[in-house]
Amino acid sequence: MFQLENKTETKKSLKKVGEKVLKDIETGNNPSLEVPIRALSNVKFDEKSKMLTMGKATAMRYFFNVAHVRKFVQTVEAAAVAKELLDVDKHLSLREAFYRMKRTLPDSNINLVDEQVESNQAIEDLELISNASRELLHINANKMGSVAGKVVVEDKGDRVDWSKLGSGGWSIPSNVEEIEFKKVNAKFIIYMEKAAEWERLHEDKVWEKLNCVIVSSQGQATRGIRRILQRLHIEHKLPIYVLTDFDPYGWYIYSVLKFGSISLAHISERLAIPEAKFLGLTADDIEKYDLKKHLIKFEEVDFKRLDQIANYDWFKNSKDWQRQFKLMKNMRSKAELAALSSKGITFISEKYLPEKIKNRDFID
Amino acid sequence: MFQLENKTETKKSLKKVGEKVLKDIETGNNPSLEVPIRALSNVKFDEKSKMLTMGKATAMRYFFNVAHVRKFVQTVEAAAVAKELLDVDKHLSLREAFYRMKRTLPDSNINLVDEQVESNQAIEDLELISNASRELLHINANKMGSVAGKVVVEDKGDRVDWSKLGSGGWSIPSNVEEIEFKKVNAKFIIYMEKAAEWERLHEDKVWEKLNCVIVSSQGQATRGIRRILQRLHIEHKLPIYVLTDFDPYGWYIYSVLKFGSISLAHISERLAIPEAKFLGLTADDIEKYDLKKHLIKFEEVDFKRLDQIANYDWFKNSKDWQRQFKLMKNMRSKAELAALSSKGITFISEKYLPEKIKNRDFID
Repeated sequence: MFQLENKTETKKSLKKVGEKVLKDIETGNNPSLEVPIRALSNVKFDEKSKMLTMGKATAMRYFFNVAHVRKFVQTVEAAAVAKELLDVDKHLSLREAFYRMKRTLPDSNINLVDEQVESNQAIEDLELISNASRELLHINANKMGSVAGKVVVEDKGDRVDWSKLGSGGWSIPSNVEEIEFKKVNAKFIIYMEKAAEWERLHEDKVWEKLNCVIVSSQGQATRGIRRILQRLHIEHKLPIYVLTDFDPYGWYIYSVLKFGSISLAHISERLAIPEAKFLGLTADDIEKYDLKKHLIKFEEVDFKRLDQIANYDWFKNSKDWQRQFKLMKNMRSKAELAALSSKGITFISEKYLPEKIKNRDFID
Repeated sequence: MFQLENKTETKKSLKKVGEKVLKDIETGNNPSLEVPIRALSNVKFDEKSKMLTMGKATAMRYFFNVAHVRKFVQTVEAAAVAKELLDVDKHLSLREAFYRMKRTLPDSNINLVDEQVESNQAIEDLELISNASRELLHINANKMGSVAGKVVVEDKGDRVDWSKLGSGGWSIPSNVEEIEFKKVNAKFIIYMEKAAEWERLHEDKVWEKLNCVIVSSQGQATRGIRRILQRLHIEHKLPIYVLTDFDPYGWYIYSVLKFGSISLAHISERLAIPEAKFLGLTADDIEKYDLKKHLIKFEEVDFKRLDQIANYDWFKNSKDWQRQFKLMKNMRSKAELAALSSKGITFISEKYLPEKIKNRDFID
C-alpha cells in the first residue's frame, strides 16, 4: 500500500480511477469504486513490519445505490480536486479542500459536502483507492514545528541550511514530499514533543555538540514532521530518538511515531518508524536524577491512558516497557523533562542527554 | 513603563532591586518591595496612546508580614533566577523557570513555589518592579509561527534571509529581543491567525508579488510574534494588516494585537500596535464575494464573545466596528477565510488580497 512516490505516478493513478468509472458508464454498468474498509476490524498490528497496518477487506461503493451515492460522488469529487491541484501545482489545506468540494449540485439545493468530516473521509478513501498519500494528492495537514542541525535541503528552489537559522530554526512545512536532502552530516535525530524543550537544546547547541538534528512539534507530531523524520531515517539511515516526558501521553506520542496510529493505519508505511527508540524520561531517570520531588500526581485520565497503552499489542511483549508501565503505575505520578532545570539551567543538554546517548540508555 | 531596552540596563535594574532589599536589611528596616497592582481596577484604556495600560496604584510587600512573606521571597527568587540567566546568557521557558525556583527551604519541607502560577506571578511582578520585560529577563513564552518575506535578519551570528527558506519559512523564536534587522525591503506585513492560510499565501508567493512580509501563528499570537511585528512596525515603519476570519474570536485576536490585553496590560508598550489595521474578512466581504452559502451558524459562545468585544472601550466609539458587530449579530453567523477557496484555489492570493489592499479597504 502507498507505494506511489511522485507526481507522475499520482497523476497516472488518479487517471486510472477516472477511467475505471468512465468505462463503467460506457459499458452500461453501475459505476463503482472498490474501497478498502477503514474500520477497526480491518486494522491490525503487523508483527513482521512492526506497524499498524490495514487488512485486505474492501467494500464496493456504487453510484446507483441510495446508500452509496453520496459517498461515491464525494470520492470522485475529491479526485477531481486532487487532479486540479496537481495540474496547477498547488496545494490546499483540508479545510480549503472542504470548501472547494462544497459545490451545490445543479438544479438542486444539495451540497456535495456539508461538513468537513465528509470531505475528510472522501479524501482518505481516495488515498486508499489511488495508493497516493494525501500529501501526494496535494492536500495538506497542519503546519507546525521547528528543526535545526547539520542538514542542508533544497526546497522550492531555495537551499536551506538547518544549521544557520539563528534561534528560530526552520519552520517545518505541512508537506515535505518534494524536499531534497542535499547534505546530511548529522548522525541521529532527537524528536521532542515540546517547543520549549527544543529552544533549550537549541540554545545549548546540542545539535552541534552531539552532531544531531533536533526536531519539535507541540504535542502529537504532525504528518509533516512524522514524514520528514521517516524520510531522514530511511533515506539517510539516521536513528530517531524520541524525547518525551515521563507521562502516559508522552509515551503515546512515542507509540504513534514508532508504530503508527489506528486512524492513520492505512498510511503507516509512509509515516511510522518502527526502529525509533525512546530516549526519555523513564522511571529509572526519576531515581537516578533525583526528580521524585517533582512528581505530579496522576489524574483519572492518566490512569486510563496508561492502562490503554500498556495493553497495546506492540507493547505487550516488551519486558522493558511493561516494567516502565508498572513502575509508573506504582508511582501514580508523572514527571516532566522541564524538571531537569532544577538541577541546572543546561543540565538536560550537558549531562542528561550526553550521558543517556553515550550509554545507549534507550527503550526500544 | 518598560523603558528598558537591553541587557546592560536589565542587569543594572535587577541589581538595584537587590541593593534596595540589602539596604533594608542593613539599616534594620523591614525588607520590602513596591509592586504595581495588577488587578482589573488598575488597568485602563489610555485614550492618548490607544493602548490598555496599567494605572499608578502600587502596594508594598513586606518580608516580616505573614501575609506577604511567601510572595516577597518568590519575587526575590525570580530576580535571582533572572540574574543567573543573564550572567550565563541563557534563557528558560516559564515552565523551566518554575522548576528552577522550586527549591525546598533549608531545614524545612516548604517549597519556595509549589505551582507554576506562583512562579508566573512572581515573574510578572518582577517585570513591573524591574521595568524589564520577561524577554529581557531571559524567561521565554511559547514558540510558534512562521514568517516569510523580503527581510534579512541577524540572529545568534547567523544571517537569515526570510525570502530564501523554501516552503517552510523561518520558525519564529519565543524571544526576538536580540534579533537585528539587516535589510527590510518589504512595504507592509500581513499577520494571519492560521498556519494553513500562511501556506496558501506562501505557495502563491503573495509576499513577493505584493512586496510584503507574511506572518502566522496558530490562534492567538504569541508574545514573540507580537513583539517581532511591533519591532518591524516601530523600527521600520511597516504597516501591520491583520487577516482573520469573520468571527468574534478572530476579531478578538485583532483587538489584542492592536490595543493589548487586560492580562498583559503592564507590557502593552512592548507588544501592542495601535496603528494595526484589520484586513480580513468583513460582513461586506461576505456580500461582495458571495460567501453567504458558507456562513457557519453562531453558537452560544460566539454571541457572548461578540457582545463582549462590542463593549470594549476601544471599539465603542468606532462607527465602522459597531456597524460590523451589528451586521454580524444580524447574520447570527461567522465565516472563514478558507471559504474563499470555493472561488478558486488561489482566489484569496490573486483577487481578494490585492483588491482589498489596493482599495485600502481596511477597518481601523
